[in-house]
Amino acid sequence: MTAQLVLTALPDIPLVKPGDDLAGLIQEGLSRAGLKLQTGDVLVVTSKVVSKAEGRLLNLAEVTPSPEGVRLAEQSAKDPRLAEVVLQESRKILRVRPGLVIVQHRLGFVCANAGVDHSNVRGEGGQPEDWVLLLPLDPDASALRLKERLEAESRVSIGVLIIDSHGRAWRMGTVGVAIGVAGFPALLNLRGQPDLFGYHLQVTEVGLADEVAAAASILAGQAAEGLPVVHVRGLPYPLRPGKLAELIRPEEQDLFG
Amino acid sequence: MTAQLVLTALPDIPLVKPGDDLAGLIQEGLSRAGLKLQTGDVLVVTSKVVSKAEGRLLNLAEVTPSPEGVRLAEQSAKDPRLAEVVLQESRKILRVRPGLVIVQHRLGFVCANAGVDHSNVRGEGGQPEDWVLLLPLDPDASALRLKERLEAESRVSIGVLIIDSHGRAWRMGTVGVAIGVAGFPALLNLRGQPDLFGYHLQVTEVGLADEVAAAASILAGQAAEGLPVVHVRGLPYPLRPGKLAELIRPEEQDLFG
Repeated sequence: MTAQLVLTALPDIPLVKPGDDLAGLIQEGLSRAGLKLQTGDVLVVTSKVVSKAEGRLLNLAEVTPSPEGVRLAEQSAKDPRLAEVVLQESRKILRVRPGLVIVQHRLGFVCANAGVDHSNVRGEGGQPEDWVLLLPLDPDASALRLKERLEAESRVSIGVLIIDSHGRAWRMGTVGVAIGVAGFPALLNLRGQPDLFGYHLQVTEVGLADEVAAAASILAGQAAEGLPVVHVRGLPYPLRPGKLAELIRPEEQDLFG
Repeated sequence: MTAQLVLTALPDIPLVKPGDDLAGLIQEGLSRAGLKLQTGDVLVVTSKVVSKAEGRLLNLAEVTPSPEGVRLAEQSAKDPRLAEVVLQESRKILRVRPGLVIVQHRLGFVCANAGVDHSNVRGEGGQPEDWVLLLPLDPDASALRLKERLEAESRVSIGVLIIDSHGRAWRMGTVGVAIGVAGFPALLNLRGQPDLFGYHLQVTEVGLADEVAAAASILAGQAAEGLPVVHVRGLPYPLRPGKLAELIRPEEQDLFG
């Protein structure tokens, strides 16, 4: 049998607004694509539409920078109100230079600007350019809610990933990574499989959720917000419960940072 | 139109030996999968089979460790002959701890153990467990040779990626990354595309070759060496000449390291 992985970007998902029923929009998108969910399927959703549906919009006019926020703004040449939001979304500031702040996000991963998004964001009232979008409060929980809603109406068992685009150490360009996981083996443990000749035991842990996030980003990343949901069929591994924390390297293990 | 990306692992590629005609094996695999190459298709090939076909096998019995190799072996608790090979394949040693050496490879990227592979490797003669496999001498050139061979017989224009699995800073698990590129936009520049509301210019560079490498790894990674070639159809971007160097972040720009 030929192993095949098929990714389909759900067509014509409308612009998502606070309070929208994202699971419902996904179901309509699946119908438009002619897809009926099967057990083992994975749905990959960009964090942006999850955040919008969950109302994670903030107007900078409502933000009063702390002294730490003002200092971060000076170091990073950012709006002090934006710097304050970055601070509040972070566990730790790791690196700062003009235009860029690298943080350990309150969710545990390392990313630029605490994932605070200033593009394609517009709320009700205020100055349009003052709106920013924060990452979902608890992306694992968001993924699980979507999973349960979609499974309830289809009686199958699926995985859901919420993804964002992150820069990397040493390599140019952003790639899709998982920031929320439900029903999916985020980290795949291939420990203990002997090699072809039986000499060495392979010791490999694969960041499978990040590989699927990267794959889905190829399709999702091409439009400003047009293709926020990608359906994946043909994953060559069984699904299981999983969570973002599997992908976060404990600081004391970090050889790279 | 529904955007779809289809990845197919070519079935029954035989174990590759030094001197094998890899392009020929890929053509036979494409036939078995019922695939005829089209312009815009991408072939993703694991570095392991490229290295084997190119005879990048080395027997440690032929290696005499230098004083630096002996020191690295002590720090990393590795065989001094293996440590010597790691040294010779590296531009710079970045981090060492027992069991692990992180280097800047002579090819420019950062990886563990200089990509020297000790599993699923067996050459002619000597102690079987003494054989190791080095990365291809020039993976961009290897990719280009494959591209030209495959295009000559099919009269289409395709991309070729040679991939490996790398660990990441801060995140657990390996993911597929490109280490050789031909005819493919390794780094995709989305600079200057206005956002939906016209307020902010998106400034985004996407590590597209790494996203495709990660996608292909989902299929290629599941067997010890059974699925080393993955065919990709449906990339939503045009192909162009490209190279590994696009993905290597200049050291002075490195915010993360």
